[in-house]
Amino acid sequence: MKLRRSGRLVDMTNYLLSHPHSLVPLTYFSERYQSAKSSISEDLTIIKQTFEQQGAGTLQTVPGAAGGVKFVPGMDAEEARMILGSLRQKMAAPDRLLPGGYLYLTDILGDPALVQKIGRMFASLFADRKIDLVMTVATKGIPLAYAAANYLNVPVIIVRRDSKVTEGSTVSINYVSGSSKRIQTMVLAKRSLRESSNVLIIDDFMKAGGTINGMVSLLDEFQANVAGIGVLVETEGAEERLVDDYVSLVKLTGVDVKGKQIELQEGNLFDPGRYWRMEEKKKG
Amino acid sequence: MKLRRSGRLVDMTNYLLSHPHSLVPLTYFSERYQSAKSSISEDLTIIKQTFEQQGAGTLQTVPGAAGGVKFVPGMDAEEARMILGSLRQKMAAPDRLLPGGYLYLTDILGDPALVQKIGRMFASLFADRKIDLVMTVATKGIPLAYAAANYLNVPVIIVRRDSKVTEGSTVSINYVSGSSKRIQTMVLAKRSLRESSNVLIIDDFMKAGGTINGMVSLLDEFQANVAGIGVLVETEGAEERLVDDYVSLVKLTGVDVKGKQIELQEGNLFDPGRYWRMEEKKKG
Repeated sequence: MKLRRSGRLVDMTNYLLSHPHSLVPLTYFSERYQSAKSSISEDLTIIKQTFEQQGAGTLQTVPGAAGGVKFVPGMDAEEARMILGSLRQKMAAPDRLLPGGYLYLTDILGDPALVQKIGRMFASLFADRKIDLVMTVATKGIPLAYAAANYLNVPVIIVRRDSKVTEGSTVSINYVSGSSKRIQTMVLAKRSLRESSNVLIIDDFMKAGGTINGMVSLLDEFQANVAGIGVLVETEGAEERLVDDYVSLVKLTGVDVKGKQIELQEGNLFDPGRYWRMEEKKKG
Repeated sequence: MKLRRSGRLVDMTNYLLSHPHSLVPLTYFSERYQSAKSSISEDLTIIKQTFEQQGAGTLQTVPGAAGGVKFVPGMDAEEARMILGSLRQKMAAPDRLLPGGYLYLTDILGDPALVQKIGRMFASLFADRKIDLVMTVATKGIPLAYAAANYLNVPVIIVRRDSKVTEGSTVSINYVSGSSKRIQTMVLAKRSLRESSNVLIIDDFMKAGGTINGMVSLLDEFQANVAGIGVLVETEGAEERLVDDYVSLVKLTGVDVKGKQIELQEGNLFDPGRYWRMEEKKKG
C-alpha cells in the first residue's frame, strides 16, 4: 500500500524491529510502500539516528545489488547498568533465600519484559560474533536463550537431562557436575545440530561450570564450535572454575543463610573490551 | 531529548511495541520528547492508523487524568492464515514421522521468529480476556507461553513434572494422562500463583487433554481461574476429550506411519465468534 513518510516510518520501524539481523533489500521497502528508493534511504537515515540516539541498536547498510539494510539490536552501557542494578536489588531480597543457600529466581525468570531486556543485552554483547544457534539446557535457561536468539535471529536448541520419544534419535554424554561432583547425563536430538555450527551457550546460573562444560563437550561431540558463553548469574568462590571465557551479568558474591544476607555484584560484562558497543560509541 | 515528529514516530513506535498492554500516560511522551500533548496526540493517530492498516494491532485511548494510550497487539485473519498455512506445510514433511506416530517438531519450536508470531496470534485471540498469568508445563510449551505472555504483558509460571530445590516449597497433584491412562505428577512452586488469579493455559500439543486437565486441577488447588486454553496442535479422534473450551491453531487429523503421510488441517481458531478481531474489523 502507498504510505506517506509518517506512516512509512512507523511501519518500517515495526518491520525492522521484528526482523533483527536480517538483510532487507531497499527494493523490498520501495515496493511495499510504492515509494522511490531515495525516499526510503532518507527514512532509514532517520530511523538509524533515532535508534542510535535512544540506544536501541543501529542500522547497518550493505551497498551493492545484493545489499540492503540490517537492524542490529543493541543496548548502551547506561541502560544495561540500570536494568542490572534494579535486577540485583530484586535478587537481594532476603525472602529469596532457600534451604541450602539457593536463590528463588522463578518470578524473575518468569517476567517476559525483563527476560526480553536480558536477551537484548546478550545479543548486544555477542553482536559481533558469528552465531548460528543458541543452546541452553532445560528448564530455567530456556526463556533467556529464546530472548537472545530472537534478537540474534538464530534458532534455539535445548539440551535435556533425559531423552524423549518426540526428539527422535539422540546423542548423549556423561559429565561430572562441578559442584556436586556427581555424574550426570545430557541429551541432544541428533538432527538438531549440524557439524561446524557456531553455537552461543546461554544459561541462567553457573557455579563451578559443570553444566556449561557439559554443553561444551556435547558441542565437541557434534563437531560444532563454541561462539560464546553467557550466564545471567555466576557464583564467586567456586573452587575450580571449569569454564574460562564467559560473560556474566550478575555475580553472587556471598550468601549468609543464618543472617539472611545475599550479596550481589556486577558481572564481568563491563570488563574492558567486552562491552564493545559502548567503547565504540565513546570513541565516535 | 527533544525530537522532531519523524524521530518521535520512530521512538514511540519502538516504545509502544516493547510495552504492549501497558497504559502509557500522554505526559510520559510529552516529557520524553519535550513536545506539546497536542503533537503527541497527532503522532499517536498516525501510529494507530498504520498499526491497524498493517494488522499489527491497535492503540486504545483511555481519556481522563488517569488515562493514556495502550498498545494492544493483534494479527488479522489473513496474516494468521498465511502463517498457519506455511506452518502446516512444514509440519507435513514425511521425515517428521517418529516411531509411534509422534511428530518431530523440535526445529519448528526452536525458531524464535515463528514462535513470536504464534505468541502474537494467541495474544490476539485472547486480547479481550482478563489475564493475570500464562501457565505452561515444561518443556516444549515454554517458548510459546513466553511469546504469548510477552505480548499480553503478564508473567509466566511453569509447571514441572518433578520438584526442584530452587523452587522452594511446592504444591503437587496427581492426574491421569488422557491417552496413556497412567498416573502422573505435576508440581508448581507455592509462591508462584496467588488466589483468584486469571490464568491462560498455553501448550504445544493436546491429545486427549490429560495434561491440560491436570493444569486445570492444579489451578483449582490454588483457587485460581482458567481464563483460556490455547494449544498449537490438537490431535483429532482422541476418544474422549477431557477439555472442552480451548483454541487450537493446527489440527492433526491423520498419521499414516507406514505410508509416511501426515494430514493436518486448520485448528478451531477461525470458528465463528472466536477470531473476534477479524469480525470487528469487517463490521467497521
